[in-house]
Amino acid sequence: MALKFEVLGKFNRARAARLALPHFVCQTPLFMPVGTQGTIKGLTNNQLEEIGCQIILGNTYHLALRPGAELIDDLGGLHKFMNWKRALLTDSGGFQMVSLLHLADITEQGVTFQSPVDAKPMLLTPEESIQIQNKIGADIIMALDDVVKTTITGPRIEEAMYRTLRWIDRCIVAHKRPDEQNLFGIVQGGLDPVLRGNAILISYYFQRYMCQRFGGSQFTRAVKIKTPFGVLLHSVLLHYQKINPDMLCALGADMYDCVYPTRTARFGTALIPEGLLKLKNQAMANDERPIDPTCLCMVCRNYTRAYLHCIVTKDPMGSQLVSYHNLSYMMRLSKDLHTSIVEGRFPEFVQGFLRVQFPKGDIPEWVCNAMEVAGIDVSTGCAP
Amino acid sequence: MALKFEVLGKFNRARAARLALPHFVCQTPLFMPVGTQGTIKGLTNNQLEEIGCQIILGNTYHLALRPGAELIDDLGGLHKFMNWKRALLTDSGGFQMVSLLHLADITEQGVTFQSPVDAKPMLLTPEESIQIQNKIGADIIMALDDVVKTTITGPRIEEAMYRTLRWIDRCIVAHKRPDEQNLFGIVQGGLDPVLRGNAILISYYFQRYMCQRFGGSQFTRAVKIKTPFGVLLHSVLLHYQKINPDMLCALGADMYDCVYPTRTARFGTALIPEGLLKLKNQAMANDERPIDPTCLCMVCRNYTRAYLHCIVTKDPMGSQLVSYHNLSYMMRLSKDLHTSIVEGRFPEFVQGFLRVQFPKGDIPEWVCNAMEVAGIDVSTGCAP
Repeated sequence: MALKFEVLGKFNRARAARLALPHFVCQTPLFMPVGTQGTIKGLTNNQLEEIGCQIILGNTYHLALRPGAELIDDLGGLHKFMNWKRALLTDSGGFQMVSLLHLADITEQGVTFQSPVDAKPMLLTPEESIQIQNKIGADIIMALDDVVKTTITGPRIEEAMYRTLRWIDRCIVAHKRPDEQNLFGIVQGGLDPVLRGNAILISYYFQRYMCQRFGGSQFTRAVKIKTPFGVLLHSVLLHYQKINPDMLCALGADMYDCVYPTRTARFGTALIPEGLLKLKNQAMANDERPIDPTCLCMVCRNYTRAYLHCIVTKDPMGSQLVSYHNLSYMMRLSKDLHTSIVEGRFPEFVQGFLRVQFPKGDIPEWVCNAMEVAGIDVSTGCAP
Repeated sequence: MALKFEVLGKFNRARAARLALPHFVCQTPLFMPVGTQGTIKGLTNNQLEEIGCQIILGNTYHLALRPGAELIDDLGGLHKFMNWKRALLTDSGGFQMVSLLHLADITEQGVTFQSPVDAKPMLLTPEESIQIQNKIGADIIMALDDVVKTTITGPRIEEAMYRTLRWIDRCIVAHKRPDEQNLFGIVQGGLDPVLRGNAILISYYFQRYMCQRFGGSQFTRAVKIKTPFGVLLHSVLLHYQKINPDMLCALGADMYDCVYPTRTARFGTALIPEGLLKLKNQAMANDERPIDPTCLCMVCRNYTRAYLHCIVTKDPMGSQLVSYHNLSYMMRLSKDLHTSIVEGRFPEFVQGFLRVQFPKGDIPEWVCNAMEVAGIDVSTGCAP
């Protein structure tokens, strides 16, 4: 593997590590902004480095459509194409196909879908996904998985779990650049603790790095499950549920991505230690404070809430500036989580974080459950 | 006046100067980006300073609607509100009223218009325009003028010219911050050389700084007119006609603004010494050069034409990056014009500039006319 993962500190499931990748040495836990097509909405590469971004997630599906894997390859790979010097991760493209294309059909061979260009039937196999990702050249690439809708139950879940493991084997065979790119598998198994546990067990046995996909409500239920191997590596979070990095990290996540910080910015919402700051609110119109007086990011050093209130949702600069702050917030929080684990004060950090977010002692039940799994006592802050 | 204008070099009408304003000491000729509502589309204040922006133009009409002059005043003025440390200029608001509101009606009292908020009839007088601009607090403010549609001819032009001069007198009386803000008048008179000349003559007599408004086709015809006082100070250029700063400067313009560089960026067009580079063109898809290999701006240092081709017009980051380059281009060109005048090689600079833009010797006739007025020999490059 073109990867070195050195654990620097632990607290139960939570861990702080040094993750050396071909293009950058990262500190985990880390947050990965999503740069669908080689751009993070509103931030230049200089600005991304400035806020401490270590790795960007690119969507294989979108990149393969535009500008195309061949062209990226001809131009020297995605790093060179988008001039990003640090680490990159690409997904397999399968998730987008299943979620964006209603006509996707999954067989043992791969994912069949209608081309969005000319509506012709096309097939994405595990091998082709890897070929495309080899051309794109990210530091971490993903095996194609058999994505199952969260609403589905029964034998289809089990089929998807075992098929995904078989596809990982095919991906490993197809992978042509193992010394420059790290192939990660994906854990399937829905919310079935035995299936999920078995998938992790098998992967562990073969010494494979695995990722878990979790959406909001799914995650809520998943934290109740105690698998024999509780280690999450990269969790895909969906935007509709506010899941905080502290919780993910406490449960063992090393890397996590979420479009929420940039998406909510476009609607005028800023992330602050207390929770959310809705800049559209009339109360912001003459508020001369920065978004977060404790934040040292470029936006908080330069702009007031009043100014942002005036332009947010009305001028592209508004979402640009709030996105900058929100991503800074995620970077800073991840860094603070890392440091608190290394310095042996992780539970205190999480307790303090939750106290600020829920000053009335009304931490939601599912968060309290998650903290119990993580071995962090927040009982005084939980609703009775 | 809170202004010091020191001419450092001249060539016929063209001049290079040091313009000391309350918030910044500018070098002219200079280009002013338009920050309608306190933002330059896509660029942060740090980035604007980085590219050498000296002064930003704000639209009084838009600012008065949102966030409102009272609030800006309460928050310490526009400089503080938008956290811009350098110079600011606001227009009177009259131009927007006449161009945006179809129901505007002009009498000796002022401009009557329907409120865009509640459709009630409202009146903007010269005094009110100044009161609003005093609250906004820009370094340079504009007297309300009687804006005449470019299609109108006859006695209405003369009326507008003299009314504008009368309104300037009312503005001077209303102006409460002459030690902190400089009031500029506007020359009316259409394309009538006698009217325009008289307006300038009268203003000169009263030692007033004046601006000239010119749109594209109007400008084309105006350069044929030789007024006794050819000094242009701030020319409003419309986007539909490519008017280069070199020409304006050669004809005596000290300050000029134009939305073209940012507007055209949104359509994927970049400004380069050779003219325009259409990044949407298929030929750009695998072009590994920067927009302009001679440009040292952040965008040209970091991104290829191929990358910009992929995202421009499809991702907001595309127009953001091209806007950055286009404004950098304008700043650099204005600085080069300044230096060439100071160093006594202005005609050579303009000749070289036009040779690169029109390598086939096909400089348009109206440009050749303008150069003749400016006293610069470009005859070898003009169409026979």
